[in-house]
Amino acid sequence: MAITGVLRPGHVQLRVLDLEEGVHHYRDVLGLVETGRDASGRVYLKAWDERDHHSVVLRQADEAGIDFFGFKVLDAATLDRLEKDLQAYGVQTSRIPAGDLLETGERVRFGIPSGHQIELYWEKTDVGNGQPYVNPEPWTDQSENGIAPIRLDHCLLYGPDIEKVKDIFVDVLGFYLVEHVVMEDGQTDLAVWLSCSMKAHDIAFVRHPEPGKLHHTSFLLESWEKVLRAADIMSMNKVSIDIGPTRHGITRGTTIYAFDPSGNRFETFCGGYQSYPDWQPIKWTWEEVGTGIFYHDRVLNERFLSVVS
Amino acid sequence: MAITGVLRPGHVQLRVLDLEEGVHHYRDVLGLVETGRDASGRVYLKAWDERDHHSVVLRQADEAGIDFFGFKVLDAATLDRLEKDLQAYGVQTSRIPAGDLLETGERVRFGIPSGHQIELYWEKTDVGNGQPYVNPEPWTDQSENGIAPIRLDHCLLYGPDIEKVKDIFVDVLGFYLVEHVVMEDGQTDLAVWLSCSMKAHDIAFVRHPEPGKLHHTSFLLESWEKVLRAADIMSMNKVSIDIGPTRHGITRGTTIYAFDPSGNRFETFCGGYQSYPDWQPIKWTWEEVGTGIFYHDRVLNERFLSVVS
Amino acid sequence: MAITGVLRPGHVQLRVLDLEEGVHHYRDVLGLVETGRDASGRVYLKAWDERDHHSVVLRQADEAGIDFFGFKVLDAATLDRLEKDLQAYGVQTSRIPAGDLLETGERVRFGIPSGHQIELYWEKTDVGNGQPYVNPEPWTDQSENGIAPIRLDHCLLYGPDIEKVKDIFVDVLGFYLVEHVVMEDGQTDLAVWLSCSMKAHDIAFVRHPEPGKLHHTSFLLESWEKVLRAADIMSMNKVSIDIGPTRHGITRGTTIYAFDPSGNRFETFCGGYQSYPDWQPIKWTWEEVGTGIFYHDRVLNERFLSVVS
Amino acid sequence: MAITGVLRPGHVQLRVLDLEEGVHHYRDVLGLVETGRDASGRVYLKAWDERDHHSVVLRQADEAGIDFFGFKVLDAATLDRLEKDLQAYGVQTSRIPAGDLLETGERVRFGIPSGHQIELYWEKTDVGNGQPYVNPEPWTDQSENGIAPIRLDHCLLYGPDIEKVKDIFVDVLGFYLVEHVVMEDGQTDLAVWLSCSMKAHDIAFVRHPEPGKLHHTSFLLESWEKVLRAADIMSMNKVSIDIGPTRHGITRGTTIYAFDPSGNRFETFCGGYQSYPDWQPIKWTWEEVGTGIFYHDRVLNERFLSVVS
Repeated sequence: MAITGVLRPGHVQLRVLDLEEGVHHYRDVLGLVETGRDASGRVYLKAWDERDHHSVVLRQADEAGIDFFGFKVLDAATLDRLEKDLQAYGVQTSRIPAGDLLETGERVRFGIPSGHQIELYWEKTDVGNGQPYVNPEPWTDQSENGIAPIRLDHCLLYGPDIEKVKDIFVDVLGFYLVEHVVMEDGQTDLAVWLSCSMKAHDIAFVRHPEPGKLHHTSFLLESWEKVLRAADIMSMNKVSIDIGPTRHGITRGTTIYAFDPSGNRFETFCGGYQSYPDWQPIKWTWEEVGTGIFYHDRVLNERFLSVVS
Repeated sequence: MAITGVLRPGHVQLRVLDLEEGVHHYRDVLGLVETGRDASGRVYLKAWDERDHHSVVLRQADEAGIDFFGFKVLDAATLDRLEKDLQAYGVQTSRIPAGDLLETGERVRFGIPSGHQIELYWEKTDVGNGQPYVNPEPWTDQSENGIAPIRLDHCLLYGPDIEKVKDIFVDVLGFYLVEHVVMEDGQTDLAVWLSCSMKAHDIAFVRHPEPGKLHHTSFLLESWEKVLRAADIMSMNKVSIDIGPTRHGITRGTTIYAFDPSGNRFETFCGGYQSYPDWQPIKWTWEEVGTGIFYHDRVLNERFLSVVS
Repeated sequence: MAITGVLRPGHVQLRVLDLEEGVHHYRDVLGLVETGRDASGRVYLKAWDERDHHSVVLRQADEAGIDFFGFKVLDAATLDRLEKDLQAYGVQTSRIPAGDLLETGERVRFGIPSGHQIELYWEKTDVGNGQPYVNPEPWTDQSENGIAPIRLDHCLLYGPDIEKVKDIFVDVLGFYLVEHVVMEDGQTDLAVWLSCSMKAHDIAFVRHPEPGKLHHTSFLLESWEKVLRAADIMSMNKVSIDIGPTRHGITRGTTIYAFDPSGNRFETFCGGYQSYPDWQPIKWTWEEVGTGIFYHDRVLNERFLSVVS
Repeated sequence: MAITGVLRPGHVQLRVLDLEEGVHHYRDVLGLVETGRDASGRVYLKAWDERDHHSVVLRQADEAGIDFFGFKVLDAATLDRLEKDLQAYGVQTSRIPAGDLLETGERVRFGIPSGHQIELYWEKTDVGNGQPYVNPEPWTDQSENGIAPIRLDHCLLYGPDIEKVKDIFVDVLGFYLVEHVVMEDGQTDLAVWLSCSMKAHDIAFVRHPEPGKLHHTSFLLESWEKVLRAADIMSMNKVSIDIGPTRHGITRGTTIYAFDPSGNRFETFCGGYQSYPDWQPIKWTWEEVGTGIFYHDRVLNERFLSVVS
């Protein structure tokens, strides 16, 4: 297999302070499709062009943030193999039974040194994108309902010990380093962007003293014109925009950062390059981190390094 | 490794009737970068954002067409393994020594039942995209020189026995079927789109009585606006446009087909979806093949099935 | 006044063979807003961003085509003055009473040598674009309902004696010639594009033996990406596309021509340059008329000169 | 004539602290075409798609800012008439001889209560856009040299007594009010956007205690994608970006504000609606001025009201 192992980010469970307010945001403003609610009250959503049952799960809680981030792997054998590889590497894992998340098989969960819970799974029901698999149209009405991203794309997590986190993702899970920012010493990583695919990032980490923090979950748009449309829709709905539309130097994507009503930052972005594992990683120096993060402003805004959930 | 095995299309060798006319077309109109010429007179070019030494090789000949299409694989071990797997499958292979193509290591070449020569290799010199790997800018002047695609993306080949070809790519080389068109009988494939990555196609085949034919090589653009710009540049340079700008139903990409001065069709395209190997393939029925190929016209033009080189 | 006299195309009355089929097309596929129906059964529509009550009027009839094309003028005094100027020039005019068209004041109608009925009026109710005139949002949901053009932009009419028509528009109504195509003799106009504004065309004429024919009415889109979206929506709705997406050499606009269910051609287009009356007209020679009309194909399709309604 | 009187902004003379630094910015980064230098050392430039000899004149001085802003009028008779109308209204005028600006006829200059010098003229040599007036291509290489706007579009000036200024432009020069922002009292204008055409603004004024100040000169781009490209080019050239890419609520345009090396703000923008003199003006209330100016941020940045040159 040319693509094997870990395929892609498959779901994120987010905590929101008020469930219906959160559902309104993710379904009606961001424009995800609600696909189910479970007995514990969690709400399941997916981007219109995703095929699997859900990619975002909302849980009401007293504090915003991320519960876990899950990756779909190729098949059952891969799941078993990666579980053993993690354990052999010294990472404790646990199995969560099938059905704990709606329409989803057994998951292997493990904590990483940055304080986040990561999951692997291989089964989730294919509910399609609203078009048949025979002679489909290229898009549907749903693709214009709210911001309407194509997919959950990646997340950026904040926490300590990101060099250990990187090693787990690279050495055990088969990711590769695409870009990184080094600190004043020219060596220590401030931030790493990691890919298990041709995406410039499937997950990214920034060094941060507090463990388990979420900087943002990210959703993919189809064009720079859709980025403008997203910013307009945010303004029409009084969504709090952090920055954008602008471009990242790192990964080259065009982007908006904004906050959901609970204070979880999310990104709607487009573009950037596609990468391969034989490519040399790109390095950003401490002096140019501003340009790397926000290519047009060329300085970090005060919130980028401090506001997380 | 999450991406392993065959990584991507790495090069195509095309025959042109007049070398300098061909170089003018691929370098000055299409806007590839010339990176070398070898002792046998072949000219090497790459798209501006590709990092390896070349992706297009032009050879002067009496007849237009394709000599071979090569894929880069992850590493030396992969090359050895795939060579053995091909032989075990009954495919004859040969080794072409390092240096036969400039800045390129040893290649494993094999013929496929459709009459085409396919190659695998793992070494080619990284010459970069004109930007450093430390604090790079997102694009360069070269990205506006001519049509200036991002990369060689895929090719569509015409020949017999495409079900056998598909099996080699899927069973031995780890590709997966993304979309296919079936004939009147509802079963036999008229055409198959195959991926070794997240691209909706790394290579595609159409059933055709004559072996070894090239329908088109394809180059990736960054946006629908760049597709318009490409069509404009084609007209300014009197390039013979086959069809477009338009959209494909199959893969959803936006596209122009045109011909180089020797009659080799090429495509400049953008967009379409990104696919994964766990996705169910999309099928197009015989009645809807026109819509599948040219989504707006909804009929094939007379050239699509007959004009190849 | 810097803009005075004739302001803009204000309405077109089109004949359709089946009223509800026509309403479905113009309202649900093209995405105009239905604003009224009158006692005689005519249906009134407007583009979402137009402010006046209507710009398209549909009338059921046994034959497709155009009944009349109307221009809004600045005020009552302008209407009176232009009426007298037309009469002084030898053009017969008649007054149609206020209310004959819904929410519309008195109209001055006159025939022109190409066999078309043209109207001038100055009063039509401002119904707005769905946003208040205080603190409006930049767009509304209506702007994504169907193709959803911004406005009725212009029409292209076919008929004889277009040099006489041009003189009326230029000498009496204050239009200016923006571009023209000359015939083999290098002198006689085959086609003229005329403006009363900064638009590259408010009305255009092609020489044709049959009088009173409609080549197309044209609707403005906001971007090339919206042109792609329009083509997609046409295909989803089985609208018969004539040509496009493509670019015009003449006026530089990007365009799709298609047919309504009754066979009236319409255009959805974007872009092109903005012109001024002090600019020298652009001339297209007979040899380059194909490039002028369809810049990418560089030949006329067979329908351009023959299929009119 | 349907378009008559004052046609359009024709030129601005800007003061720069270092001439060659200014030329580098306006020619090589902004991408205007240098068309001449005069005996007094002034440098003349035009946007690539403008036809008249120049639209920007740079003069070296000890202080940045604007010397004068000039409008082209239809013809000599219009110039004479408007001169008389201004004098009759109580505005003092002077004649500047032909040739004072290169390739430009006599100019009528007058001061307005906001402290700015405004000019009218009707003659300037047509030097074309690099394409012939017979069978032209839609664009040229020059359109990709630097940011490469289409034209000088408008300017925004800061000074006192803007209600008197508005009256001169509306009552004497035939402009109309397109949008305005009112102050806390709900009546007094804080800012007015005025048009002599279908542009949502040919000139605009903000109330400000200091007379004669420049907020920005504005240059038109063709698409939102070109706005992104402009921001990228600014970053590549270390141009100081004020804000953007973003959208204006007022006029709906998409925009970047940035500063030339002398501190003169300039805008590269795209889009927005086209207006007509029969349209009701749009009003922005004091509470919504932030949304009106920067639609996505929904607050003014501190520089908008304070930094002028």
